[in-house]
Amino acid sequence: MKQSSDVTRVLIHGASGRMGQALLRLLATREDLRAVAAVSRSKPAQRVVDGLPYFAVTELHGVPAFDVAIDFSLPDGLEAILGLCVERGVPLVSGTTGLSASGERALDAAATTVPVLLAANFSLGVTVLGDLVERAARLLQTWDCDIVESHHKHKLDAPSGTALALGARAEQGGAQPSYASLRAGDIVGEHTVQFAGPGERIELVHRATSRDVFARGALHAAAWLAGQAPGRYQLRDMLR
Amino acid sequence: MKQSSDVTRVLIHGASGRMGQALLRLLATREDLRAVAAVSRSKPAQRVVDGLPYFAVTELHGVPAFDVAIDFSLPDGLEAILGLCVERGVPLVSGTTGLSASGERALDAAATTVPVLLAANFSLGVTVLGDLVERAARLLQTWDCDIVESHHKHKLDAPSGTALALGARAEQGGAQPSYASLRAGDIVGEHTVQFAGPGERIELVHRATSRDVFARGALHAAAWLAGQAPGRYQLRDMLR
Amino acid sequence: MKQSSDVTRVLIHGASGRMGQALLRLLATREDLRAVAAVSRSKPAQRVVDGLPYFAVTELHGVPAFDVAIDFSLPDGLEAILGLCVERGVPLVSGTTGLSASGERALDAAATTVPVLLAANFSLGVTVLGDLVERAARLLQTWDCDIVESHHKHKLDAPSGTALALGARAEQGGAQPSYASLRAGDIVGEHTVQFAGPGERIELVHRATSRDVFARGALHAAAWLAGQAPGRYQLRDMLR
Amino acid sequence: MKQSSDVTRVLIHGASGRMGQALLRLLATREDLRAVAAVSRSKPAQRVVDGLPYFAVTELHGVPAFDVAIDFSLPDGLEAILGLCVERGVPLVSGTTGLSASGERALDAAATTVPVLLAANFSLGVTVLGDLVERAARLLQTWDCDIVESHHKHKLDAPSGTALALGARAEQGGAQPSYASLRAGDIVGEHTVQFAGPGERIELVHRATSRDVFARGALHAAAWLAGQAPGRYQLRDMLR
Repeated sequence: MKQSSDVTRVLIHGASGRMGQALLRLLATREDLRAVAAVSRSKPAQRVVDGLPYFAVTELHGVPAFDVAIDFSLPDGLEAILGLCVERGVPLVSGTTGLSASGERALDAAATTVPVLLAANFSLGVTVLGDLVERAARLLQTWDCDIVESHHKHKLDAPSGTALALGARAEQGGAQPSYASLRAGDIVGEHTVQFAGPGERIELVHRATSRDVFARGALHAAAWLAGQAPGRYQLRDMLR
Repeated sequence: MKQSSDVTRVLIHGASGRMGQALLRLLATREDLRAVAAVSRSKPAQRVVDGLPYFAVTELHGVPAFDVAIDFSLPDGLEAILGLCVERGVPLVSGTTGLSASGERALDAAATTVPVLLAANFSLGVTVLGDLVERAARLLQTWDCDIVESHHKHKLDAPSGTALALGARAEQGGAQPSYASLRAGDIVGEHTVQFAGPGERIELVHRATSRDVFARGALHAAAWLAGQAPGRYQLRDMLR
Repeated sequence: MKQSSDVTRVLIHGASGRMGQALLRLLATREDLRAVAAVSRSKPAQRVVDGLPYFAVTELHGVPAFDVAIDFSLPDGLEAILGLCVERGVPLVSGTTGLSASGERALDAAATTVPVLLAANFSLGVTVLGDLVERAARLLQTWDCDIVESHHKHKLDAPSGTALALGARAEQGGAQPSYASLRAGDIVGEHTVQFAGPGERIELVHRATSRDVFARGALHAAAWLAGQAPGRYQLRDMLR
Repeated sequence: MKQSSDVTRVLIHGASGRMGQALLRLLATREDLRAVAAVSRSKPAQRVVDGLPYFAVTELHGVPAFDVAIDFSLPDGLEAILGLCVERGVPLVSGTTGLSASGERALDAAATTVPVLLAANFSLGVTVLGDLVERAARLLQTWDCDIVESHHKHKLDAPSGTALALGARAEQGGAQPSYASLRAGDIVGEHTVQFAGPGERIELVHRATSRDVFARGALHAAAWLAGQAPGRYQLRDMLR
């Protein structure tokens, strides 16, 4: 549970990655959150950047007090930060993808003592879309469901984790989605969930035009998670 | 309340119009519904067409027993069929648009004794879309909401009644939608409700490719309304 | 070359199929074309339907004089009608897909004496789209090209012949398209050719909402081909 | 005509605006272009920023030698830079919108001695789209043409200059476009030109996701214009 204070103190794990840098940049625009430490994979060249102390993954014991950790690193780095969060009794927001079964179990175990939220896509729009998709699938039981996603050509996995997560929501509603993937240009991310019935169709589309939506959403989740009881959370729990 | 019988007997009001003809054609494909009478604006040239008796609006007293009436006529013809439904204690499904305030009051009054359902668009997809739009608006309070609709170039009113109905759902969710209308080719009907936030967007789209979706939805509503208690209904009441 | 007369006399080959029936229905709306004979796969039950004489494929010798043949049959029926056209010196429009190499050679051989036009999709819109796609590919050499097509779930082949034809135009312009296919509901046919560059994108979309566009286009092609010199033609030759 | 040298020397007029800043940032990434001077509306606070000398509009006589000027300022500043370009015999690329008739005449007059290129939208995609739109309009004479554009909610003019320019191309092809405008979120710019015929439709869409496409296109145009003869040019002249 968050320490009593006006500002929530944030630890960024995976600070040298693209998402880590975006998180630090956007943190500077929020009055309710403040970065107090950054952790990067290897021993950092500089110990302090723009007033923020950096730590290597092997130096976590020295990290100062924080109220919530945000993790955008690799699966093999998750265990260390998870241990620190449990030790300090602090919530963890993680956007790390490709967890193994044992990584998932570690999250579940940690969630018995601290709040833990894992998500493949932190944008508010995709979170809302998931909600709409499940509802549409429930109301359109006999219609066909297809999911099309487009991303920049450097993205290797297909379908995207977000497409699969939307598909899981469609399945919860009773649909059996099929998938198609496009890799082109520098598309940040687009997902269309289509329901087709006789003589009519519904298309539910999300378009991200800036990667900042993911960092912004992770900060929003961190601010929210800092006030929750221990447990395993999903972004949808943040929707009323 | 519907008479006890295996098949629901249907009266079509506005039978000579395009929707009336579609209703009669699709009725022939349903085993649970049967057309027992057709009413058209003026004295019909033939009293019986394909085994179905036709009546002029002035001859309603002679209409045989029916379990539900479906009305796609003009505002000034609504009162007569409404009177007949009340007199016979039978539900009324109406797709008549452009009702005056007094027409609306007449529907409300009738709804105290029989089930009454009025809708601008009977397609299942649009009904579901309305539900999704209200929910999205509620979850995306700070995003901008726009509604774009496209119809064939013979459609005179703009925005469409469906666009306005979707807009009303958006407003119930807290949005303030703006509207744009296209009139082109023979487009049956397309509606896009867009929510735009910082760096991302959601588009909720409905495309009708066959006018049959409207008649099919009206028949579906009639079969459902025949089993309801008196009152004023909307299509959304049919969604679980 | 077409016989001198005010009206072009049309033979429909494959008259009992869905396209054949659509061709006959739309032929009745054109003043410049007139159906004079129909050929169906097997011996027809009725020799004359609505005043039109029907012939089995084995009875082609009895077919009356005609100015152009329109063929929407199966590959194995093409040879017979091709022979008749060559024998009579009459142009052939064919929408038969899945031709073998020998079928293609037969078309080439026939084209030395009569005009022959084969197409996978006779809609005007797709013909124009092909032109735009090749031009866009030529002007956007470094952009990525993707083609997405959606059809009703009964369509077995994927990508659609039309998607492949559009892809061939893109390749002629210098692009290397990739393909994705959706099979859902009763979608008549939609094709999107996307070009994605840094920070921007172009989408070229065709939506067919009525199958009549294919029959209408085939009639248009027949009227045009009736006035051409012998040779092998494509729909694009009809564009100025 | 450009001075003989390996690198084209560029003057940025309107350097303190958003486009001016983007031009300077992207100029740094090109080896064939080099910024040699910046002009801003009022007397600059610093005479030199990042090694680049700044000049007020009233100090143009002091600007060093350059090979091409790029102007993204306001209509009332155009005359001064135009005069300098004519005096020095140097081409001018301008993205200034809202020129008066006299401003247009000044451009025409200057174009008798130096190359002049004015455009509302410098993105490569929009330039190509204009070409496709005119061609589609020419091939689809009887279809309806509509143009829908979406921009961020701070954009005041509607339809956008780009929409009007695309409409002008459609008109050159024989179409009579109608317009609709959406203002929502932070949309960089989207334009859809739709052609609707019986039973089918073509949509030609451009989506810009980064404002850099406009600056990048202007630099591309500048590099090209530096090698042209005097005259009035349009972006389409750069397409083969």
